[in-house]
Amino acid sequence: MDIKGFRFSAVEAAIKKPGRLDLALIFSELPAEVAAVFTTNKVQAAPVLISRRRAKNGMARALLVNSGNANACTGEQGMADALECARATAEALGLPDEELLIASTGVIGQPLPMERFRKGIQPLVDGLAVGTLDDVAHAIMTTDTFAKIERRQGEAGGSSYCIEGVAKGAGMIQPNMATMLSFLVTDAAVDPALLRSAFSEAVEGSFNAITVDGDTSTNDTALIIANGAAGNRLIEAGTPEAAAFLALLHDTLLSLAKQIVKDGEGATKFVEIRVRRAKSNADAKKAALAVANSLLVKTAFFGQDANWGRIIAAVGYSGAEMEQDRVEIRFDDVVMASSGVFAGGDAEAAGTEVLKQKEFTVTIDLHVGAGEATVYTSDLSYDYVRINADYRT
Amino acid sequence: MDIKGFRFSAVEAAIKKPGRLDLALIFSELPAEVAAVFTTNKVQAAPVLISRRRAKNGMARALLVNSGNANACTGEQGMADALECARATAEALGLPDEELLIASTGVIGQPLPMERFRKGIQPLVDGLAVGTLDDVAHAIMTTDTFAKIERRQGEAGGSSYCIEGVAKGAGMIQPNMATMLSFLVTDAAVDPALLRSAFSEAVEGSFNAITVDGDTSTNDTALIIANGAAGNRLIEAGTPEAAAFLALLHDTLLSLAKQIVKDGEGATKFVEIRVRRAKSNADAKKAALAVANSLLVKTAFFGQDANWGRIIAAVGYSGAEMEQDRVEIRFDDVVMASSGVFAGGDAEAAGTEVLKQKEFTVTIDLHVGAGEATVYTSDLSYDYVRINADYRT
Repeated sequence: MDIKGFRFSAVEAAIKKPGRLDLALIFSELPAEVAAVFTTNKVQAAPVLISRRRAKNGMARALLVNSGNANACTGEQGMADALECARATAEALGLPDEELLIASTGVIGQPLPMERFRKGIQPLVDGLAVGTLDDVAHAIMTTDTFAKIERRQGEAGGSSYCIEGVAKGAGMIQPNMATMLSFLVTDAAVDPALLRSAFSEAVEGSFNAITVDGDTSTNDTALIIANGAAGNRLIEAGTPEAAAFLALLHDTLLSLAKQIVKDGEGATKFVEIRVRRAKSNADAKKAALAVANSLLVKTAFFGQDANWGRIIAAVGYSGAEMEQDRVEIRFDDVVMASSGVFAGGDAEAAGTEVLKQKEFTVTIDLHVGAGEATVYTSDLSYDYVRINADYRT
Repeated sequence: MDIKGFRFSAVEAAIKKPGRLDLALIFSELPAEVAAVFTTNKVQAAPVLISRRRAKNGMARALLVNSGNANACTGEQGMADALECARATAEALGLPDEELLIASTGVIGQPLPMERFRKGIQPLVDGLAVGTLDDVAHAIMTTDTFAKIERRQGEAGGSSYCIEGVAKGAGMIQPNMATMLSFLVTDAAVDPALLRSAFSEAVEGSFNAITVDGDTSTNDTALIIANGAAGNRLIEAGTPEAAAFLALLHDTLLSLAKQIVKDGEGATKFVEIRVRRAKSNADAKKAALAVANSLLVKTAFFGQDANWGRIIAAVGYSGAEMEQDRVEIRFDDVVMASSGVFAGGDAEAAGTEVLKQKEFTVTIDLHVGAGEATVYTSDLSYDYVRINADYRT
């Protein structure tokens, strides 16, 4: 079953290196609702400033996105350029300006190559006749090594509907949004307030639960456009259909979030960090993030070194309440430490075997309360350094 | 002029690999005052727990330190082992237990090799006849590539005195103490309260102003032992001599701190990050640390990439108050960005030349207040990953 009432397009506008799609468009044939979240960085790119304001209206029918240039730290010229791109696209689509959102990702601090945008927009709009969401997924890639896309189907009141989405990530990935773009579309008819609350909740448990390097970017944007083309009875808050929609949306976002971590710059490991029995959920998240962002922990993962001492040390400086002689640490099912000391026996050898896998789970039980959190992260490899030392050259 | 009334010793106790000094002793021939600061990590090694308590008495005549094993996360056994080592050393020196401090650095979570300590202590005490502070500097090294030592001379009331110190650092270096040990001795006679306040203040502007990887360890200890053997008139608070002592102490600690950063694991650059005109000093430090700890910034330094956008982005998520269109960023004297946008002209080429140096300064002027802070950091290279992926193997 295909999603109804959406069209997609992507072109090569020569913003990135030749031969790569870099300008994309998502368009709803019907009036549509939008819910969106943006970076918490105080430095915000022009497209973020514009889209944040427009998304507040709750209605949006199109999204223009480019990769290769973030249009961040570009001052008044950057704002004028973003508005011009948005206006030209809205005009070509026959939409009011306010119903078009924009997003950008790429290098900070360089002016948009406006001639290339001006030339690219009409071919982009023409491409809606033939383009696919897959094209969009490719066009938003920067240092990503694979396109990130997810599709799910749900049912509400006897009608099927789809949720589909794309994402880009790679470096600068940290909760509260990071250089991460993710665009979702659904043909479900959803109550607007429910759409917003469900999207925020789903983002919290997915994009805000991943970290690659702890940096939060200037351009992060995640949004969902819902056009109701599936013809289902409106999904309203407090119904089983609403719960099912939230679960499906969360599932879709979590899949995209995990794809981002797996494609973390230079990543060779995918690690789930679970903190259990913390004083509070917030404490659990603090501890999990400190572990996930510790360079010493991340390089130990890369080296397949069962160095649980670095993990307990990271929890110790995380700010989370803890008592060191209550801490238990497991690698998958292998108990590495209990009551804060090395578990002994064959834990070292067994733990090393766990770390040799591509994916594993680290569980940290603090035994001081009932708080829980899970975050997903990658290791830190030589390639992370290579990719980021050479990014602009 | 040599420092008076202190003796030093170091031996190979086979705690580290063969052929390396790993157990050291500092001993004052006279009764002495001590001032000390310790890790803020909630996970604290046994020697930290012991020395913190003993240092509160304000008197200490000796310090026993080993490298190769941190004696952290070793539970009750670790505490018993640390006490036994301390007791044996105090006995051999003829001191009350309470006047001996201990410190350890190395791998977390493994029991101390007690047989080796038991065998090592008498030769260590015997070595006081011939040992030097330089031996101590070597014995505390872990992944350090060079020994860190500093000596300064001052004058008070017509008498000369010395301040001498050693440090070890390398990885896990972050303000509020990191796996960093530093031991100072002075033969100056200093009022005990002044010694404590001067030491805290000097640590704040030196060891608490450096960061290599943002990790804070379980074992950090910095202390100074003052024995008055120089015979100067007591240095008291509020006098010119006190100001001179503080300046000299700060200078000594800053030199050791900078040596630590220069020897940061895999470091190829030494970078001074200055934040100016922040809302407050605390805000300035937040911003400087976010920049210094950003992996994207650190890898750009390694790649000699004049990517000021990553710097403004790090300030943006630091939590410091800022307005993006007021920010000025300079690499040495080259203005890279002003009013939040690229400075243009030949800034890119000139900025790249600055980054090709081994040492340079990044100045970030926020133009929102009068707060200032300076931190010192290193870049992030392939070798950081190599060293930390392979640390225990």
